[in-house]
Amino acid sequence: MPSKYWSDFVQGLDPYVPGEQPKQQDLIKLNTNENPYPPSPKVVEVLNQDAVKLLRLYPDPSNSLLKTAIANYYNMDLGNVSVGNGSDEILAFAFQAFFKQRLPILFPDITYGFYTVYCGLFDIDYTQIPLADDFSIKLSDYQRENGGVIFANPNAPTGIGKSLQSIEVLLQSNTESVVIVDEAYVDFGAESAASLVGRYPNLLVVQTLSKSRSLAGSRVGFALGSTVLIEALEKVKNSFNPYSVDRLAEAAAVAAIDDVAYFEQCCAKIIKTRQWVSEQLESLGFEVLPSQANFVLIRPTSISAPELFTQLRQHNIVVRFFKKPRIDAYIRVTIGSDNEMIALVDALKEILLQRR
Amino acid sequence: MPSKYWSDFVQGLDPYVPGEQPKQQDLIKLNTNENPYPPSPKVVEVLNQDAVKLLRLYPDPSNSLLKTAIANYYNMDLGNVSVGNGSDEILAFAFQAFFKQRLPILFPDITYGFYTVYCGLFDIDYTQIPLADDFSIKLSDYQRENGGVIFANPNAPTGIGKSLQSIEVLLQSNTESVVIVDEAYVDFGAESAASLVGRYPNLLVVQTLSKSRSLAGSRVGFALGSTVLIEALEKVKNSFNPYSVDRLAEAAAVAAIDDVAYFEQCCAKIIKTRQWVSEQLESLGFEVLPSQANFVLIRPTSISAPELFTQLRQHNIVVRFFKKPRIDAYIRVTIGSDNEMIALVDALKEILLQRR
Repeated sequence: MPSKYWSDFVQGLDPYVPGEQPKQQDLIKLNTNENPYPPSPKVVEVLNQDAVKLLRLYPDPSNSLLKTAIANYYNMDLGNVSVGNGSDEILAFAFQAFFKQRLPILFPDITYGFYTVYCGLFDIDYTQIPLADDFSIKLSDYQRENGGVIFANPNAPTGIGKSLQSIEVLLQSNTESVVIVDEAYVDFGAESAASLVGRYPNLLVVQTLSKSRSLAGSRVGFALGSTVLIEALEKVKNSFNPYSVDRLAEAAAVAAIDDVAYFEQCCAKIIKTRQWVSEQLESLGFEVLPSQANFVLIRPTSISAPELFTQLRQHNIVVRFFKKPRIDAYIRVTIGSDNEMIALVDALKEILLQRR
Repeated sequence: MPSKYWSDFVQGLDPYVPGEQPKQQDLIKLNTNENPYPPSPKVVEVLNQDAVKLLRLYPDPSNSLLKTAIANYYNMDLGNVSVGNGSDEILAFAFQAFFKQRLPILFPDITYGFYTVYCGLFDIDYTQIPLADDFSIKLSDYQRENGGVIFANPNAPTGIGKSLQSIEVLLQSNTESVVIVDEAYVDFGAESAASLVGRYPNLLVVQTLSKSRSLAGSRVGFALGSTVLIEALEKVKNSFNPYSVDRLAEAAAVAAIDDVAYFEQCCAKIIKTRQWVSEQLESLGFEVLPSQANFVLIRPTSISAPELFTQLRQHNIVVRFFKKPRIDAYIRVTIGSDNEMIALVDALKEILLQRR
């Protein structure tokens, strides 16, 4: 119930609902797109007793070690990089910094659920552009007057990516507002727009270390963009919470980014597992959207999606079901380890067999 | 230079400027009120290899272990506790949740510099109430129509605290808007208003683990209040960044809060050191404001404050100088270890001697 003590807008807020983090230990957790592999062994090395003792000191508010690691990886200048407490915080700052405009911003009707939440929080007008019938983003639909554009590449929860070429076509025509490409899942098979940052001053690329670098628990995200965009982002950040990336998170993130070999190896394993499980699911009669992410959106044909969700849970497997138009016939399954995927396929076989 | 890509308000933002975090290793760092003692040994124990491996998983977005530790410490219910990425994030959420009102909010003219920054970020009207001549907060000055009240107890950078009784008098008359007591430094000698939470539904108490629990590097803060206030705070948090307290930060915070003996021992040591150094400074001719915090605001009489700041830096000692009306004759000195304070007193003696 609202209270006289609340600011008016609080009553209307419709917060984001994260995927469940069940406390039960023996579950196969395929509901929040976490990485099945632990972070780089280098992360374990840097988070030692000496690092813990230094927790009495504030982090470096400019996070220059982390920005340097990211700039080196993407061959950019420090001034093209901003970091934050997960890509969620970066996105929240970016919505404030760029999207409070006269015209509505544009994003897909089916995408990361937080975009509408930020619009509610910051009182930003938006128009949702329907995905094509095959669930792909049609970027030509975004070539209209707007206060900004944001889309995820690959998109969530579909997993379907856009080519760099099609993104560049949009950037060539859309020069008056900021275009944010949310690349939370890009390392699992899509191509980063980081390489376009030097050419398009209105492009902001947002990434996270939660998925491909196995650091969901550390909350580190970053943005790549022109100095003019990064400056605005940091003005908002430093007016909100300058120290949001803590000492251990920064140290872990630097170690994870610097260990390129481990990162590439984990991504390759997940891509291979995705291919295997996609084939298995198709042979079981599921529609499987072509994914470039660490999850697959699948449609069962002989059982409803919510019922499949419930039955999998009875097999101690947690997946994600979205009770939303267009995707409520699907469930989203995170790509886990090979053993977890074998257990998933076995459970599905059992569930489908019982329904014959 | 502003850009067409920025939201209009960004140009007018005047971000907070944190105290310097110098990279030079051999400095005596007395500028940002960090604790000279490392976190509890229990913190080192919990941040082990197993904890690091689990970083692949998201934190618990409800942070129930941390809320439980805080609720136990203060003998409250879970529903009276919210946690965030440092008390800065909590304050940012609270300004949004409670202070976007028709009437201006009230806070002291000399206090934590971030309050005006939040007002700028969230477009909140405010009136600054002058401190009394002795630099104390006169709470009777706050008994007027307002959209909310916030003050720090003890106040920063003065270190002067308010009695619980005087806070209760304010709460008895100020029932229509939220009163936030920012207790970042309360554990060093002031009395927490936590005990009043059950009786005043409009009271929000905000604390941090950065100072008294030696976890500035972990970024953990919390709020205590009625369920109706906590609900609004969490609505804003979950519309912004639900996972902002990361896994290691939560584990460290729980261990630090549970180790009550270590916490009390560190606070007692700092209070004792503060007493010793205050006497030393007075005998050297400084005016020393009576501090209940882990810092002292001092006024040199035979040298200007900025010059003293510069000379101390040449002795590898960093303190804080605020180029602001009323306090620009003072410097703020964090209470360090006994050895650091001895080095400070020696340096001051040398500086003053050279000026004779």
